[in-house]
Amino acid sequence: MEVERKEWILEEYVHGGVPTSRHLKLRTTSVGVSEDDVPDGHVLLRLHWLSVDPYLRARMGSQRDGLYFSPFELHKPVTTFGIGEVLQTKDSSFSVGEIVLNTIAPVSEYCTVPADALKKIKLGPDSGVSALDYLGALGIPGFAAWIGIKVIGDPKPGENVFISAAAGGVGLVAGQLAKLKGCRVVGSVGSDAKAKFLKEEIGYDDAFNYNVETDFDAALSKYFPDGIDIYFDNVGGRMLEAVINHLNTHARIPLCGMISQYNQVWTERFGVRNLLNLVGKEARMEGFLLDWNRFGEFVEETTGYIKQRKIVSKYEIYRGTESFLESIQSMFTSSNGGKVIIQVNDDAKA
Amino acid sequence: MEVERKEWILEEYVHGGVPTSRHLKLRTTSVGVSEDDVPDGHVLLRLHWLSVDPYLRARMGSQRDGLYFSPFELHKPVTTFGIGEVLQTKDSSFSVGEIVLNTIAPVSEYCTVPADALKKIKLGPDSGVSALDYLGALGIPGFAAWIGIKVIGDPKPGENVFISAAAGGVGLVAGQLAKLKGCRVVGSVGSDAKAKFLKEEIGYDDAFNYNVETDFDAALSKYFPDGIDIYFDNVGGRMLEAVINHLNTHARIPLCGMISQYNQVWTERFGVRNLLNLVGKEARMEGFLLDWNRFGEFVEETTGYIKQRKIVSKYEIYRGTESFLESIQSMFTSSNGGKVIIQVNDDAKA
Repeated sequence: MEVERKEWILEEYVHGGVPTSRHLKLRTTSVGVSEDDVPDGHVLLRLHWLSVDPYLRARMGSQRDGLYFSPFELHKPVTTFGIGEVLQTKDSSFSVGEIVLNTIAPVSEYCTVPADALKKIKLGPDSGVSALDYLGALGIPGFAAWIGIKVIGDPKPGENVFISAAAGGVGLVAGQLAKLKGCRVVGSVGSDAKAKFLKEEIGYDDAFNYNVETDFDAALSKYFPDGIDIYFDNVGGRMLEAVINHLNTHARIPLCGMISQYNQVWTERFGVRNLLNLVGKEARMEGFLLDWNRFGEFVEETTGYIKQRKIVSKYEIYRGTESFLESIQSMFTSSNGGKVIIQVNDDAKA
Repeated sequence: MEVERKEWILEEYVHGGVPTSRHLKLRTTSVGVSEDDVPDGHVLLRLHWLSVDPYLRARMGSQRDGLYFSPFELHKPVTTFGIGEVLQTKDSSFSVGEIVLNTIAPVSEYCTVPADALKKIKLGPDSGVSALDYLGALGIPGFAAWIGIKVIGDPKPGENVFISAAAGGVGLVAGQLAKLKGCRVVGSVGSDAKAKFLKEEIGYDDAFNYNVETDFDAALSKYFPDGIDIYFDNVGGRMLEAVINHLNTHARIPLCGMISQYNQVWTERFGVRNLLNLVGKEARMEGFLLDWNRFGEFVEETTGYIKQRKIVSKYEIYRGTESFLESIQSMFTSSNGGKVIIQVNDDAKA
């Protein structure tokens, strides 16, 4: 038996600007869904939810753009984290009907993947977490926030923490983690509504709209009269430079990603002129990726926070695999509030 | 009894360019050298040797240049590390004729300072170290090299280490420390003679002249086919940017100072465009100053290396306090090879 599926293919690397239909093509194919169609050690999934994250844009550039993330292969499906239901399995650790996390999910309705790409997740009324949490606070964004705040930033109570792209999937969790450590937390966002949301619903001490307060130096003077101890950087560029003029001694800058810089080839990116200040301030700037050795520790700690409602989530949900290109483009226009997710099927359960 | 002395005064902050006679003035005064001229808890010294270091330039800019080092006070003497002989003392821990290290020595022939600005040093035939060592490998440059390599860089045997301004006071020691840790060490310098010197006399694995190999990207590809694990940055700017394109995963960049950037106000400094690479390479860039809590540990370890001839030194000696302005200017023209020192008196003993 075969079913029709759509999937997004990277046909051309994006050397500058936002990905368009020139780079990403929606292809319709069919896939066998009988037990015989699944190779040994593999699992066939029907996908329910897919994670859309800024780093995917970085993987759509080639090495010559100096992005230094492993690029997607050309003419192959783009992959991300997804939640799906096991339709067929040739691996005994999984069973039909089980809901699993797929770390290399194509943007598609169906996929067949090696079992070791899947992670078991605990759902159900007693678990206290939802399937969506595994793409948000318990997924890539939450894990990035946890590494950046806990491992790199190592906040002390009372420290001043600044988070850019603070209403995005990563920023939302990062701010809440810093609050849980007893810090004062301020975020920058792209709209007044998001600033209001962070203050009223997420517990940020303050937030500002960088499209309105465009003099970043003045904004940082206003929101950080005592300087910045930790800057969780999601944007890079002009904001990063402005922050470096407001650092306290021994400040830390976890570099999570730089969404303002992904759409330029590297020679056209913003040049940060004040790195010399890091010397006098004895400050540390440190890039990080996800350290899978610590995934278990992260899940355990964060699950506890979610159950106790100490970390809350917000999602921006796009419908259908067709919406992938639009959802990626939306990342670069400040239009989203919350973690961006694609609901693949109408009957997907959160 | 009074003696005549000259001393250098900072009359105007240097907002751009190299310090000139407009900023630094040589003033002649007289100073009392009788016991009665020395306040309680103070010591009167006749200075023999003075340390001239690039960071002094940074302290000659005001805060608005964004240098973020504590600036010298206007209309006051510029101070540095110096070696001198006790002429009079009103502090019982020191005795007349003793040779001491003065951490706030004016660029002058005589000075009266609080006893707590002095550090005792061990000299003489049995000590295995010279007075000059206390301004070099055992002084500010050596201590900076030790913190940057040992504390921030933490090299593993076999790692690839790159050192800029490698024939300067700091670079000389930093390279030798990295070699002692079993690393492969390459330096950049401003002349062929210095490159030869590093390779033949200091034990660097290789060195290149950045005035000849002006395509830094090509030079780094050539000298670091396996990438860079530690970059000890003394220069900043264009070299720092080039290095960031050659980093290995988990690379460390101790930021010691940025001599290429001191002479510009911050908005005119070189903008580093590829900080995004730090994310994908999980690399760390960290500024540091001298951590005096570790001075004892540093002196003990480094004294051992000097006695065993595992760390060797080279000095560029200027004569007389009058030469201070010229010696500072020389730092920015690649003309020095080795640690720059002023011999204050003709009878000063090394």
